[in-house]
Amino acid sequence: MSRILTGIQSSGRPHLGNILGAIKPAIELSKHPDNESFLFIADLHSLTTIKDGPMRREFTRAVAATWLAFGLDTQKNTFWRQSRVAEHTELAWHLSCFTPFPMLNNATSFKEKSDHAVSGVNAGLFVYPVLQAADILLYDAEIIPVGKDQRQHIEMTRDIASSFNHQYNEAVFVLPEARIDERLMTIPGIDGAKMSKSYNNYIDIFLPENELWKVIKKIKSDSTPLEEPKNPDTDITFQLYSLLASSEQIADMRRLYEGGNYGYGMAKKAFYELILEQFATERERFNYYTIENPDALEAELRAGEEKARAIAGKTIARVREKLGFN
Amino acid sequence: MSRILTGIQSSGRPHLGNILGAIKPAIELSKHPDNESFLFIADLHSLTTIKDGPMRREFTRAVAATWLAFGLDTQKNTFWRQSRVAEHTELAWHLSCFTPFPMLNNATSFKEKSDHAVSGVNAGLFVYPVLQAADILLYDAEIIPVGKDQRQHIEMTRDIASSFNHQYNEAVFVLPEARIDERLMTIPGIDGAKMSKSYNNYIDIFLPENELWKVIKKIKSDSTPLEEPKNPDTDITFQLYSLLASSEQIADMRRLYEGGNYGYGMAKKAFYELILEQFATERERFNYYTIENPDALEAELRAGEEKARAIAGKTIARVREKLGFN
Repeated sequence: MSRILTGIQSSGRPHLGNILGAIKPAIELSKHPDNESFLFIADLHSLTTIKDGPMRREFTRAVAATWLAFGLDTQKNTFWRQSRVAEHTELAWHLSCFTPFPMLNNATSFKEKSDHAVSGVNAGLFVYPVLQAADILLYDAEIIPVGKDQRQHIEMTRDIASSFNHQYNEAVFVLPEARIDERLMTIPGIDGAKMSKSYNNYIDIFLPENELWKVIKKIKSDSTPLEEPKNPDTDITFQLYSLLASSEQIADMRRLYEGGNYGYGMAKKAFYELILEQFATERERFNYYTIENPDALEAELRAGEEKARAIAGKTIARVREKLGFN
Repeated sequence: MSRILTGIQSSGRPHLGNILGAIKPAIELSKHPDNESFLFIADLHSLTTIKDGPMRREFTRAVAATWLAFGLDTQKNTFWRQSRVAEHTELAWHLSCFTPFPMLNNATSFKEKSDHAVSGVNAGLFVYPVLQAADILLYDAEIIPVGKDQRQHIEMTRDIASSFNHQYNEAVFVLPEARIDERLMTIPGIDGAKMSKSYNNYIDIFLPENELWKVIKKIKSDSTPLEEPKNPDTDITFQLYSLLASSEQIADMRRLYEGGNYGYGMAKKAFYELILEQFATERERFNYYTIENPDALEAELRAGEEKARAIAGKTIARVREKLGFN
């Protein structure tokens, strides 16, 4: 069994780009019989940028509901909120005393943020790679699937863990490996740029039908008249449709585009209906967890936090023993 | 009732300088009916400099035993180990996201340490003012007795707390006041310099008698022959003796010095006997807590940790509510 750990950002409601690019692949990975996945909502990390409490509560619930809606098996895997397991911040303090100051000061992510910050960055942004190291090392995680921009942070985690292991001449921590996903899908937003919350070009598949349709209608298209044939390969609606449709459906749609007398509005309608059809169960389950029965969501998370604490507690006991805090 | 909070360093066994300069005055302060003292062993802070586990365990026990030996009333006050109350590190993370990076980077204590460090400082040294802010704010402490060198850290705590209160437009945290003790006694070591662990010139009053005598014998003195009168005002043994003796005893000793035929060895013997006499109860209690019944020490600390957690838990609940972690 390989322990795979993923921190889930909670700085917004997950959109179609997050779902296709991150959530579904991670859930697939978690289903493999050789894998045991540790998936946590990184709500403590979100405090470096989001200060609004009700917003964080809502985002955290929406993120949790999305993963459950997409069928994450919480029996086989472990799914929890970082902020509910006190060992994360405790271990972060301990590790900070084994982290050279210049390592953090030279981190690319910090340099970029401090270069662009208008009113100065906060200390949380500076130390967050140490919290991230704690997130990973607490669970003896072996594999961390990350984008290329996170490779340096996994290196830092390995350096901190090595320095600790070396100090006590014992393998207290497992050294994790980054698994860089080269095939990362880029999902276009309704304007054709990468779908992203910050570009405000995203599709929230959990919206009520009328609101969802309003968003889909806004997908950018060119001004080719209705009657003329259209090029599917340069059209955003077609690209989005292709991400969800079967190859048969894609081929049919391509014929409609190329045949003329098929307008973008009709393609958008088809895409909208495909979303409703494909995600019917997920939309229902999302509503169940967020509106009809939020207690069921809370119960799922609490059960996950019990499991997480049991594992994190064992690691922190090893650490305290070495440090003389027992 | 004023809440007075003091963090107790645990980077060594307390010596006579610590006892007369810090421990006894703090215990006196805690006895005042208007005061409620919060005294914690800052063992998490000690990790910035001490990595050796068994050493930390021994120092922590010795520090705790000293305070109990000197009669700290743990019913009236609260006495605990920082590392056993998880709210300290949790709040430190939250506060770090409200702490401007430049505030820490410009802190005098950090600049001094990073200027003198041979192999680079660790990140714990950089962020420790944030942990200190958490130590203070968790207990709604109003008064922090500190030396002048710590004044800036209390200012930082106030700034962080203000920034948090301002963000949520509510007095979530009490702003603490520094109380600078101007009368700080300087206790001479056996070589006449300030008594300090780092100068290795300290008197450990809890040593077994023969070892204690060996240290006292080493107190520096001049080479005035036995028969001649001696100047008490320039003699280290006389100064140390005066710190413990009654005014009558001091006057008698002065006469002996000035009368001649009284050797430094005799004065040292008198000082040694005064220590044994004055600290008879404390030496007994220290041995009780460290050797005869370490379980009693552990039980005292655990009871204190229960009390500390009850208070810290209320503060962290307020904080989590504001931040949306509930």
